[in-house]
Amino acid sequence: MGEFDLIARYFTRPVHRAALGVGDDCALLTPAPGMQLAISSDMLVEGRHFFADVDPGRLGHKALAVNLSDLAACGARPLAFTLALALPRVDEAWLEAFSRGLLALADAHGCELVGGDTTQGPLNICITVFGEVPAGHALLRSGAQPGDDIYVSGTLGDARLALEALQGHIALPPEALTTARLRLEQPKPRVALGQALRGVASSALDVSDGLLGDLGHILRASGTGACIDTSITMNLIATSAYSINARCQLDTEMLHQCTLAGGDDYELAFTAPVVRRAAVAAAAQASGTPVTRIGRVEAEPGLRLVDAQGQPVALRYASFDHFAGG
Amino acid sequence: MGEFDLIARYFTRPVHRAALGVGDDCALLTPAPGMQLAISSDMLVEGRHFFADVDPGRLGHKALAVNLSDLAACGARPLAFTLALALPRVDEAWLEAFSRGLLALADAHGCELVGGDTTQGPLNICITVFGEVPAGHALLRSGAQPGDDIYVSGTLGDARLALEALQGHIALPPEALTTARLRLEQPKPRVALGQALRGVASSALDVSDGLLGDLGHILRASGTGACIDTSITMNLIATSAYSINARCQLDTEMLHQCTLAGGDDYELAFTAPVVRRAAVAAAAQASGTPVTRIGRVEAEPGLRLVDAQGQPVALRYASFDHFAGG
Repeated sequence: MGEFDLIARYFTRPVHRAALGVGDDCALLTPAPGMQLAISSDMLVEGRHFFADVDPGRLGHKALAVNLSDLAACGARPLAFTLALALPRVDEAWLEAFSRGLLALADAHGCELVGGDTTQGPLNICITVFGEVPAGHALLRSGAQPGDDIYVSGTLGDARLALEALQGHIALPPEALTTARLRLEQPKPRVALGQALRGVASSALDVSDGLLGDLGHILRASGTGACIDTSITMNLIATSAYSINARCQLDTEMLHQCTLAGGDDYELAFTAPVVRRAAVAAAAQASGTPVTRIGRVEAEPGLRLVDAQGQPVALRYASFDHFAGG
Repeated sequence: MGEFDLIARYFTRPVHRAALGVGDDCALLTPAPGMQLAISSDMLVEGRHFFADVDPGRLGHKALAVNLSDLAACGARPLAFTLALALPRVDEAWLEAFSRGLLALADAHGCELVGGDTTQGPLNICITVFGEVPAGHALLRSGAQPGDDIYVSGTLGDARLALEALQGHIALPPEALTTARLRLEQPKPRVALGQALRGVASSALDVSDGLLGDLGHILRASGTGACIDTSITMNLIATSAYSINARCQLDTEMLHQCTLAGGDDYELAFTAPVVRRAAVAAAAQASGTPVTRIGRVEAEPGLRLVDAQGQPVALRYASFDHFAGG
């Protein structure tokens, strides 16, 4: 099968919102009047972001999900995306499953595939996603103010727990591994919550590299510090809800490691003034997304971790860094 | 050096046109009223699109040039781009040269780097480029009409000639190889010509996979056929101008192969009504880009190759296909 057959068979679909679709030199997009286009690119590499034997349908889902998560963090509504794909060979079963997983998530969010590129090479998936947001209303990293509450959506640490188990570092009961693995391989981008937080949150980003490292971006951009209650964050791991046994096998340090510096969570971390607590709760309810208050923005720079009694905790976890370590 | 240092050091620049730059979850772009956004993605892979030992400055130039060429083919004015980069390791000298080549071409076209991603992995460069075009005035592949002239900009075949020489299939004198190699490694996107052809050309695309194969896309999209004068196209190779010796060493078949199915030309192929010949000439002059009339659109489907006397030529060259052959 040639490149053009491949594009036609697996990735060409009727396009509704864009003026043009796959197949011309460019796709054409027309944002509605008063709207800005929010744009984000993510590249996924075998061995770095997924295992070689990952289910291709889940990989298709995840490749788009991590990009939609960036739109969510800006409060943007998904419109369209391009897909650039390097494949070692044309494997029709793999492509069929990959495109099905990818396009199912795209359909769920009304996000249309409008262009891209395919080539031969080591497996690499690069998606660029486009969303729209009312001009001047995008959620930024730079708006946190001392005194603001700090929140995180959903759960934390399960993806890292799955990674540790799949790499043989820890043992998980089968049921717990299934749950955790789903979080690693099929993250749910918090698109509805992001849009509901426009005008409510003072800053936001998506947690992709680990809570503390990503929160650090907000704090630096905002010129503030923060205090985080680790007795709350350590309980945000979802896997324990499915199997008490799983929780019992994990020591406290592993729970902190996974929840504070796990990576691959794709939840939203955001700040909001104390007076907007009811509005945050309403945004969470309207979007069907649980959110948890985990700390407070402070004027003093740096991240301080405390226990339930407000006493300092000595923990220090480095954020996941794609070029850190070996 | 961590991922974030790397982005900051080599790829963060002041952003003028976009509302935001590198460093938040998304970049924000606001097309001017009445404008559509033209979008294209290209992925470059080592061993497939460039040699491992290619000059990194030239590679940076080419990675953006092939994307700007897609904008040119739509008649769009470049605005901005995102860069996703997988690197086997952090090599500061390589990154410094790569970013310098990339950003020099970006600056020459007023095209701003607004976001992206870096990760560890086999070398892979994925750029998504954004341009603007007046709504409804993009050049498409589908507008060719029987009787229209067919044109190509600049020169053809030199990039393929360089490839053949670098792979040891042919010998070229050093001066000729230098010239041809520059065409392979530093293509000039025909951005000004593309914009000048809005309202003049009836269809257009950029020649990236070989003239005949790419013309086929116009013919299929337009429901037409074409007749091409190979006595004209075989003389569009530039290398011969720099060294008569180079030309003498190449047989006619190689000249046809390079000019008709060479690939990596990044010229514009386009059609225009016969009555617009003066307008085509004016567009060529205004943009400082030579164009050559090479044939005619015909109602009968298929591509017919003829010699200077209009007699059929038996040549049949397959277009370059990223998944064809071994």
